[in-house]
Amino acid sequence: MSDGWDYLPNIAAVRDAAARIAGHARVTPVLSDAALDLACDACVFFKAEHLQRGGAFKFRGACNAVWSLDDQQAARGVVTHSSGNHGTALALAAATRGVQAHVVVPDGAVKAKLAAIAGAGAVLHRCAATQASREQAAANVVAATGGSLVHPYADARVIAGQGTAALELLQQVPDLEVLLTPMGGGGLIAGTAMVAAALHPGLKVMAAEPEGAADAIASLAAGHRVTDIVPDTLCDGLRATLGEVNLKALQSHGVTVLPVSDEETIAAMRRIWRVLKQTVEPSSATVLAALLRHHEHFAGKRVGVILTGGNVDLEALPW
Amino acid sequence: MSDGWDYLPNIAAVRDAAARIAGHARVTPVLSDAALDLACDACVFFKAEHLQRGGAFKFRGACNAVWSLDDQQAARGVVTHSSGNHGTALALAAATRGVQAHVVVPDGAVKAKLAAIAGAGAVLHRCAATQASREQAAANVVAATGGSLVHPYADARVIAGQGTAALELLQQVPDLEVLLTPMGGGGLIAGTAMVAAALHPGLKVMAAEPEGAADAIASLAAGHRVTDIVPDTLCDGLRATLGEVNLKALQSHGVTVLPVSDEETIAAMRRIWRVLKQTVEPSSATVLAALLRHHEHFAGKRVGVILTGGNVDLEALPW
Repeated sequence: MSDGWDYLPNIAAVRDAAARIAGHARVTPVLSDAALDLACDACVFFKAEHLQRGGAFKFRGACNAVWSLDDQQAARGVVTHSSGNHGTALALAAATRGVQAHVVVPDGAVKAKLAAIAGAGAVLHRCAATQASREQAAANVVAATGGSLVHPYADARVIAGQGTAALELLQQVPDLEVLLTPMGGGGLIAGTAMVAAALHPGLKVMAAEPEGAADAIASLAAGHRVTDIVPDTLCDGLRATLGEVNLKALQSHGVTVLPVSDEETIAAMRRIWRVLKQTVEPSSATVLAALLRHHEHFAGKRVGVILTGGNVDLEALPW
Repeated sequence: MSDGWDYLPNIAAVRDAAARIAGHARVTPVLSDAALDLACDACVFFKAEHLQRGGAFKFRGACNAVWSLDDQQAARGVVTHSSGNHGTALALAAATRGVQAHVVVPDGAVKAKLAAIAGAGAVLHRCAATQASREQAAANVVAATGGSLVHPYADARVIAGQGTAALELLQQVPDLEVLLTPMGGGGLIAGTAMVAAALHPGLKVMAAEPEGAADAIASLAAGHRVTDIVPDTLCDGLRATLGEVNLKALQSHGVTVLPVSDEETIAAMRRIWRVLKQTVEPSSATVLAALLRHHEHFAGKRVGVILTGGNVDLEALPW
């Protein structure tokens, strides 16, 4: 599935990733607002990864993967499948090394994201919107080009790169009690949970998952990957199926995954736009939706959350 | 017109204002983006005053005015007329001192802004949308309450407060060559021009004005205030008529005012939302519109611009 990279990295790999991407990735700011704190009954620190290069945290993992290749591998380019932010991230990361990125994009992806992938210099390959089509199409491109597959989340290099967001957040706000991220394929949460466990063993790690794509919640309950859920959520960044290695990370670090409805997410998204004045995409807003709905987990605590991305079609807002 | 405060402050007044509002106002960040720099052919530093308290730079001037009052004056409250951001700012500033704010609001103001003024604790007084009605209604409230009028822009305390935005920007980015702000009633540009002249005499100061409310451009051309222009622009924050003292500031500091169309402003606003991921209001976007349309003034230069506010009706976006 991911070219032999489908294992969990350790904290040393995250530190290596941070060194590797420094100078390419941005150190993103941390935002907060007293009115939102009051509404959440918590001190909330929003790590603004929508201000990362390419408008999403995904650049961290993609950049680490691209710069982990040796020169011969890099010269043959990189390949992935992505409905959006990982594709743009890989294209931008490839450009920092002067190599070609190929991105397999499923039908139904957000227009603004497709334009961004192409604008970042990738060659686009269309496919049907199923997980199987995506992986098959990517395998075909790998076979044709000799390029290196960089899986969007089930990849140790990608997970280590995504872990640098939490590493950076803990440097900016050291005394957090909970970390909360959106839950998609599981690259970000795997990196985040590992960093938390290594640096602050008492730090609780949670994730927010759309009810319409709750395969992580189902997988944790079943004790194995549940892969037959057809995602039905406007959080286009969170439709991917949890990876095998990502499920292991959730299990071994005792991550709690909290469901949120799209309605709650839309309300939270509007609130972030209105109060924080940040144009985050729906996926990012799941964390505020979870803070408000599941407040018993956060009351009185210092909570670090990751605003994962800000790539939206401004013509097609969900309100 | 403004209770004896209609004169231009000096740099000492701005420094006093900075000390007075410290602890109440936020130090706002400066944003930049390589792609926007490329588009503008300039190094552009966006001072993010839409992240100021109340979502606009206006809090600086209002807060300075409120804390300039003696205790007896303050106890009788403060009064202003405002279609939006100055009203919210004065209400928030009054709350920091535990006194009442009265805000005269003209018909046709942006719904989100009225809600914000009321939410900040002000007593609202409606009036017709003309400048004369606004000033008469405010005078009536002053007569009834004994409160202090804090004019939105033709007021030395307000101008000194607004000047702290440029003071702060020049501390954050010392080597700027041009400062550019939106042009409304002229409080911000008066404070900005004075700070520039006092600290960096070679620093060029410019303003962007909507073609549909270009009374500042007309006034500079005529050599006196032109007050018979009926504003027709979606930049709701820039419909006010240039103040007398504000015109003096434009003249004495040689400020160049650049026209921009609403169409250019809307395109610039979308670009700021899309690229910087910041939900700024139309008025704020006039500066990027001016950078793009009048690039001959900015080519190759380091330009500091002020994103003045971020209060928009998310249900009524102009695209």
